[in-house]
Amino acid sequence: MTRTVLESKTKTVVIGFDEPFCVIGERINPTGRKKLAAELEQGDFSTVEKDALEQVACGATVLDINSGAVFSNKMAEDPRYADNNFVEPSLMRDLINCVQGVIDVPLCIDSSVPAALEAGLEAAEGRPLLNSVTGEEERLELVLPLVKKYNVPVVAISNDDTGISEDPDVRFAVAKKIVERAADFGIPAHDIVVDPLVMPVGAMASAGRQVFTLVNRLRDELGVNTTCGASNISFGLPNRHGINGAYLPMAIGAGMTSAIMNPVRNQEMEAIRAANLLMNHDPNGMEWIRLSKTLDAMKESGISFAEASAAAATSSAGGRRGGRRRRA
Amino acid sequence: MTRTVLESKTKTVVIGFDEPFCVIGERINPTGRKKLAAELEQGDFSTVEKDALEQVACGATVLDINSGAVFSNKMAEDPRYADNNFVEPSLMRDLINCVQGVIDVPLCIDSSVPAALEAGLEAAEGRPLLNSVTGEEERLELVLPLVKKYNVPVVAISNDDTGISEDPDVRFAVAKKIVERAADFGIPAHDIVVDPLVMPVGAMASAGRQVFTLVNRLRDELGVNTTCGASNISFGLPNRHGINGAYLPMAIGAGMTSAIMNPVRNQEMEAIRAANLLMNHDPNGMEWIRLSKTLDAMKESGISFAEASAAAATSSAGGRRGGRRRRA
Repeated sequence: MTRTVLESKTKTVVIGFDEPFCVIGERINPTGRKKLAAELEQGDFSTVEKDALEQVACGATVLDINSGAVFSNKMAEDPRYADNNFVEPSLMRDLINCVQGVIDVPLCIDSSVPAALEAGLEAAEGRPLLNSVTGEEERLELVLPLVKKYNVPVVAISNDDTGISEDPDVRFAVAKKIVERAADFGIPAHDIVVDPLVMPVGAMASAGRQVFTLVNRLRDELGVNTTCGASNISFGLPNRHGINGAYLPMAIGAGMTSAIMNPVRNQEMEAIRAANLLMNHDPNGMEWIRLSKTLDAMKESGISFAEASAAAATSSAGGRRGGRRRRA
Repeated sequence: MTRTVLESKTKTVVIGFDEPFCVIGERINPTGRKKLAAELEQGDFSTVEKDALEQVACGATVLDINSGAVFSNKMAEDPRYADNNFVEPSLMRDLINCVQGVIDVPLCIDSSVPAALEAGLEAAEGRPLLNSVTGEEERLELVLPLVKKYNVPVVAISNDDTGISEDPDVRFAVAKKIVERAADFGIPAHDIVVDPLVMPVGAMASAGRQVFTLVNRLRDELGVNTTCGASNISFGLPNRHGINGAYLPMAIGAGMTSAIMNPVRNQEMEAIRAANLLMNHDPNGMEWIRLSKTLDAMKESGISFAEASAAAATSSAGGRRGGRRRRA
């Protein structure tokens, strides 16, 4: 049984073939979010706090923390800020400290800068997921020792020194190489979560079938858990949430066990909750019934999914407290 | 390559492993629709006409015609009306004549009364789908000769004289028996569309996984196309369209090739169109883009999916006519 165990200060999340699909919230990522990058440059972490709370309320059980910011103003004052190796380690620490101050879920430490990964590993409580290692020789040599030293699971992205192959067999072979190299370091396959790299179906019509086949092979032949950047599949197409909302159940049916994605979207979260129910990963349909009430509240009150989810989380916490009081 | 070929007067629909998912509209069915049954009893076919047009506009490429009406008033006047063997053959003829008067798509002739099946086979133009034969000895002996005589494909429902088994292996064995018995009549496997019988996931938590596994086996081991009553899966649960909307892509990913369902629901049709795109069964994403425009029109104008679909169908027909005029 493949189980990838993640921990926060007090909570455990298991990614596994017989577990509900693990939603890794992607919002805390200044790459391509200019406004967020500008806030962080000014030491303003209010959006990060808000995104952390919202994503957890909406159903993320792990939060990805990406430190890939560009600090344009500081760069002008001090040329060292043009170097991500200079910016990211301290920013990663600050982001993690901020997020751990408002929520208690396992984190996914996301950077292409090894020093930022290590800074994150030092700052994170529990057992975070490291994101990521690739099949590139330099990355393998830099990241796998960190994975071993801190005894954490790692996301393995199936590209290598030759780039990203369009051939799914090559992407499978790269994943296999990473699993084998990790084994040389004493890292077990169940601590490797493979991202097989999803191509946009608008650019490559076979992209969907490719990923379903790949996920199935990764599970059957390598025994590893899998993840993906879920929204890549719909890049460039209209009504992207509709495509994502069908892609996620299909990927789950094929054996995908987690995704790095935006959980503040009801269409995708509804699809995942329904897929969990259909995979028999939702005992008594309790999560489905809970989500249905949140969707009803959205429709009735015209509020957003994030607002309805936050209200549901608060009222259920109140209900539990009430229960305890009655028993006292 | 498994191809089940259906025909109307001028149109061909192929159900197959490499075809877009075939949506068989289920609305023309007086069973459990008291208002429709009462209209039919009075010779009023206006709802049937409306349902035929709406379902085709929304994306059904085949229409199921079920004659299972109960004529309570006539029954009081003439006791023969208490007998479905008396009521259904002429009603089936009338329903088919009515539907063929307003639309031109292949039909699925749906009755438990053999004489109604034969009346339907006589009335239908082209090559309809016969619904259904079961593994019950009496049904096999009554229906397979009709299938052979009229050279039509047939829906095979995997229950037998012992009823519906909860054991998926038994349901598979029943399907296999029907395929073998059909072969004795010279009916090829590609003319059998198996309904593996979907249980409600609210009553049996393993129902989803069961059907995905069964569909895969039916495809790989028997080489047959498959269908199901899609909404059964969500029976008794809240927000049923959300469950159906994840179930259909998962079933399609597992190899399901058609469903008998209500196409006048945007959530299910959006899921199917997205799944077609992700299975590489939507060249250049044209159907996805067309659906996206219909969904946009719904949101902008507050109209129903049926209205938006009808408007889109009219405007695209107008466009085509305009094109011809310009070329003239």
